Amino acid sequence: MPVDRASLIPALTNIATRLRIDSAKSTSEAGSGHPTSCFSMADLMAALFFAEMRFDPKDPHNPESDRFVLSKGHAAPILYAAWAEAGAFDRSELLTLRQIGSDLEGHPTPRLPFVDVATGSLGQGICAAVGIALNARRIGSDYRTYVLLGDGESAEGSVWEAADMASMDSLDNLCGITDVNALGQSGPTMWQHDMDQFERRWSAFGWHTIVIDGHNMAAILDAFAEARRTRGQPTMVLARTIKGKGVSFVEGKDGWHGKAFKKGEELDRALAELEKQFVHTPGADVDLARQIPKPGPPRPVPAPKPVEPPAYTLGAEVATREAYGTAIAKLGEADVRVVALDADVKNSTFSEKFKKELPDRFYESFIAEQVMVGAAMGLAARGAIPFPSTFACFLTRAADFIRMTAISNVGVKLAGSHAGISIGEDGPSQMALEDLAMFRAEPTFTVLYPCDGVSAERLVVAAAYHAGPVYIRTSRPKTAIIYSNDETFPIGGLKVLRSSGRDVATVIGAGVTVFEALKAYEQLKASGSSVRVIDLYSVAPVDRNALVDAARATSGRLITVEDHYAAGGIGDAVAEAVADAGFTVHRLAVREIPRSGKPDELLERFGISAAHIVKTVQSLMKLELQPQKST
Amino acid sequence: MPVDRASLIPALTNIATRLRIDSAKSTSEAGSGHPTSCFSMADLMAALFFAEMRFDPKDPHNPESDRFVLSKGHAAPILYAAWAEAGAFDRSELLTLRQIGSDLEGHPTPRLPFVDVATGSLGQGICAAVGIALNARRIGSDYRTYVLLGDGESAEGSVWEAADMASMDSLDNLCGITDVNALGQSGPTMWQHDMDQFERRWSAFGWHTIVIDGHNMAAILDAFAEARRTRGQPTMVLARTIKGKGVSFVEGKDGWHGKAFKKGEELDRALAELEKQFVHTPGADVDLARQIPKPGPPRPVPAPKPVEPPAYTLGAEVATREAYGTAIAKLGEADVRVVALDADVKNSTFSEKFKKELPDRFYESFIAEQVMVGAAMGLAARGAIPFPSTFACFLTRAADFIRMTAISNVGVKLAGSHAGISIGEDGPSQMALEDLAMFRAEPTFTVLYPCDGVSAERLVVAAAYHAGPVYIRTSRPKTAIIYSNDETFPIGGLKVLRSSGRDVATVIGAGVTVFEALKAYEQLKASGSSVRVIDLYSVAPVDRNALVDAARATSGRLITVEDHYAAGGIGDAVAEAVADAGFTVHRLAVREIPRSGKPDELLERFGISAAHIVKTVQSLMKLELQPQKST
Repeated sequence: MPVDRASLIPALTNIATRLRIDSAKSTSEAGSGHPTSCFSMADLMAALFFAEMRFDPKDPHNPESDRFVLSKGHAAPILYAAWAEAGAFDRSELLTLRQIGSDLEGHPTPRLPFVDVATGSLGQGICAAVGIALNARRIGSDYRTYVLLGDGESAEGSVWEAADMASMDSLDNLCGITDVNALGQSGPTMWQHDMDQFERRWSAFGWHTIVIDGHNMAAILDAFAEARRTRGQPTMVLARTIKGKGVSFVEGKDGWHGKAFKKGEELDRALAELEKQFVHTPGADVDLARQIPKPGPPRPVPAPKPVEPPAYTLGAEVATREAYGTAIAKLGEADVRVVALDADVKNSTFSEKFKKELPDRFYESFIAEQVMVGAAMGLAARGAIPFPSTFACFLTRAADFIRMTAISNVGVKLAGSHAGISIGEDGPSQMALEDLAMFRAEPTFTVLYPCDGVSAERLVVAAAYHAGPVYIRTSRPKTAIIYSNDETFPIGGLKVLRSSGRDVATVIGAGVTVFEALKAYEQLKASGSSVRVIDLYSVAPVDRNALVDAARATSGRLITVEDHYAAGGIGDAVAEAVADAGFTVHRLAVREIPRSGKPDELLERFGISAAHIVKTVQSLMKLELQPQKST
Repeated sequence: MPVDRASLIPALTNIATRLRIDSAKSTSEAGSGHPTSCFSMADLMAALFFAEMRFDPKDPHNPESDRFVLSKGHAAPILYAAWAEAGAFDRSELLTLRQIGSDLEGHPTPRLPFVDVATGSLGQGICAAVGIALNARRIGSDYRTYVLLGDGESAEGSVWEAADMASMDSLDNLCGITDVNALGQSGPTMWQHDMDQFERRWSAFGWHTIVIDGHNMAAILDAFAEARRTRGQPTMVLARTIKGKGVSFVEGKDGWHGKAFKKGEELDRALAELEKQFVHTPGADVDLARQIPKPGPPRPVPAPKPVEPPAYTLGAEVATREAYGTAIAKLGEADVRVVALDADVKNSTFSEKFKKELPDRFYESFIAEQVMVGAAMGLAARGAIPFPSTFACFLTRAADFIRMTAISNVGVKLAGSHAGISIGEDGPSQMALEDLAMFRAEPTFTVLYPCDGVSAERLVVAAAYHAGPVYIRTSRPKTAIIYSNDETFPIGGLKVLRSSGRDVATVIGAGVTVFEALKAYEQLKASGSSVRVIDLYSVAPVDRNALVDAARATSGRLITVEDHYAAGGIGDAVAEAVADAGFTVHRLAVREIPRSGKPDELLERFGISAAHIVKTVQSLMKLELQPQKST
């Protein structure tokens, strides 16, 4: 039975008051947190959760549910309070906020079933919300996506990337709310309460805008209704609010950001003020939680078909980036969950192959890497298998999104092309030489690095069906196919490409340096020495046991060679793996800022060519002979 | 003698044609590059360099010069052509474009004296330009800053961060030009030739906008004049252009991005068309390069005074982030070149101490880390010593800017506070656990990590006067002062805090883990074992020799303990340093996504507390005893 408006407004007002009380209590109990940031948005949250959204508090993952993303993640206490109010868990748990044993953390993470992506790094939630809204389109659902931002947060460029992508894609199933409380962490925000500054920006970026008083419940309800009626463009509700609203001694006051009320007199005074705000008009006590509309049952997802295997000829030349494009297109044909995202380099990463076959599941962010990765987070959180790709160096533009992907542990499958100095003439700005360091640092990321077309295709499929985030590194130059089409590449494995009983050293490469290692093998062989050659296609995790075995079999002489800077890459990965067994690693890597030139010239000049490998093997052998002579 | 407008326009038109010809020739000679991206902006470049800007082609570094930043760095060939036309170097050098021996690289870098910051990663040049414009205000110069962007580039969020900061700071000495050629790399741009999309965005962000035909020389000159007259706000000239303008078979054609004309027939055809465009009206051959107005002599910079030394009491408790704030304020008092930048966390990083003393040299970007770092790049390139700071985790938002800072090798002194899990309750989104990996990967970065107030202050001063980029990592918790105020901390050094002739192992910490190591020392001492304790305050470079000495003195048992993820941090730094000497490292680090909790609880749970160090020392000793028993 729907609640009439005369009851609804006082009932929502009372919920808002309860949310404020819960936020105050939980942060005071924790001794830290952001109650005043919760107070400004309490009325918005009450209306959204208890008079607007469709969801099942007991089954938040239902794919037909409306979604809510708290982009201003520091207001986590009121998010938790709203879910408790809705019945997702017992209100008493709120008092475990920020304790080590509790999933009610300082900022929301998907450890909680009702959180899609971790927030707390501002400007990211709205990017994820774009992906969640795109996902509704992908699965053909009419669920709506709501995202609540802070006003200070609007200074983040990623917010405007999201704004562009949402309006380009006419996401009328997306509704943003900006809590314009005018106070940032360290002082007033850029535009304070000048609502026109917000209105003209969002409007310029193609959004329908509605400016309201964020503490006027009727205006809030009307705004959400208007957003729901708006067709062809997303809506931004710009809500003028008061930070700390509801407690007179903090309302609109600077210096109260991120401060909990002190337990005792200060908290008691705040609570007393809030308690007085409960209204007792008829209907004000109606149980709105019980009236939340539930989503229908999930629609069936077609089972994935087998992916067409690679079809190359041994020795044929194909760039791993091109094989990547071929692979995601095949994968997309086999599995409706697979989507691809691009930042205007689809003809270089070869993701255009996916677009050609499956344009409806291809999302273009133009030159905006942050929203590309952020939208992929949202898509992954809602059941898609997203492959965002760009030049590997430009993934650093989304490094903070990658960090939050790792924290969220969502299945984003990132691909970076044009790795390393082997791209040649474009010069250092286009060369990814720190991407392995970036991805290896994150404990939940798997890092894969194919050297030929077969391994590239196999690793793309492995990435798709591996739980959690994955990074695939591809290269610009064409390289020879060295694996047969039926070779398999388990994550965490490696391939021993050359091996004999009298190998004097092990050379470990990946990507283009595998071929330098193979060239070095031939040269050394010609001069009578034999080396073991390993393709370390799985950089994280690495096959520790196989590496230690190789070290033992080759007198402990391990040489890594990588098209990457010296820190954080393959050398470090191997070194840590074999350290416990007492082995050390000699690393060939790029040790200075490179420059433009031909790929082969650069490999030579920056120390990662076959010639450098040969020289290193020879010098390691000499070095070890010398001490024996001198003793 | 100023040139009259009747001669100026044909003369500029001829320069534009020469710039197109040079761009075509140099890219064809190189076999790669972006001639069509140069052609669309040739008229704009001709007007800017030869009828608008004040500079000395033979002394591009003069601090009073107008500055030009090519934000769309892939149009480098026309930048080089313009400087050659101005007389900076011989035109014949243009044909060395993209060769390994030439500084005329695929994208501009400061290897060239007329390039302030490396570009080629889109959306960065305009951020640097904001810093360059702020620098004019800092030194009291009336030089103007020009920045030319691509239209596709406008999708980058960082562009809008720059837009906000420039308008907030009323930078009327800044003039942007957007080359709206409607074609991106892989297809049409987001808004193509819809100039209104650009106009309403820039206008909404507070810029004066002028929409022109970018091939109409009179309109271009008028626009620059209007920009120069505009007071109180920056100007954006929105120039509608044709990609490939001047060569009929590529004009406005998709599929020609980043493609050079093939030498021979294709290039000859293009050149023939261009040659025909030279005009021969009277005055059209006037030598405009000779008429470029020169800047006045540089004004004197006051010599820096000595910085006030630290003034702490041994054992007193102060957070390194607070000492950082104290230090930059003292440094700023001593040296007028020092400036500070903030992204709305100045009360947490303590950069507010600088703002309090030196508000004119404090620049607030609000919550926009990309423009904060980008502006710092521009400031550093123009002689300032900028200290941008925020939470260390949010520096990942500017990772691509940090990458380009490293390539530019400009003296940006980044500081990240709230490192690691020791921040406690706020949870993983606020914990920097990959920042050391990010900065160590970059070969030109120095990485410093103080553990107490004295070392924090000393390292801030060392950073300021160290050439090139530096990262300083500070911590949230208060820690005891362990150094006397006159202790010195050379970059590349370390401190041995505990040492004896019978140390069974070396424990290497930095920041908060130094104190865990000292606690472990006491516990082990109580049980009769002695360990060496090292404070590795210089993480890059590390003191290799001292580490090897410690390893030799302590039976090769090295234990690193760091408030950072396991990959890319202190463990890896030490491991690489001692590898050649045959030593390996046992690493204590955070190996999973952490969570909210009390700092001490987290150090314990995630394996980097004193108890874990003690256990590790004991187990390493046992491990080595066992094999001896079994053999």
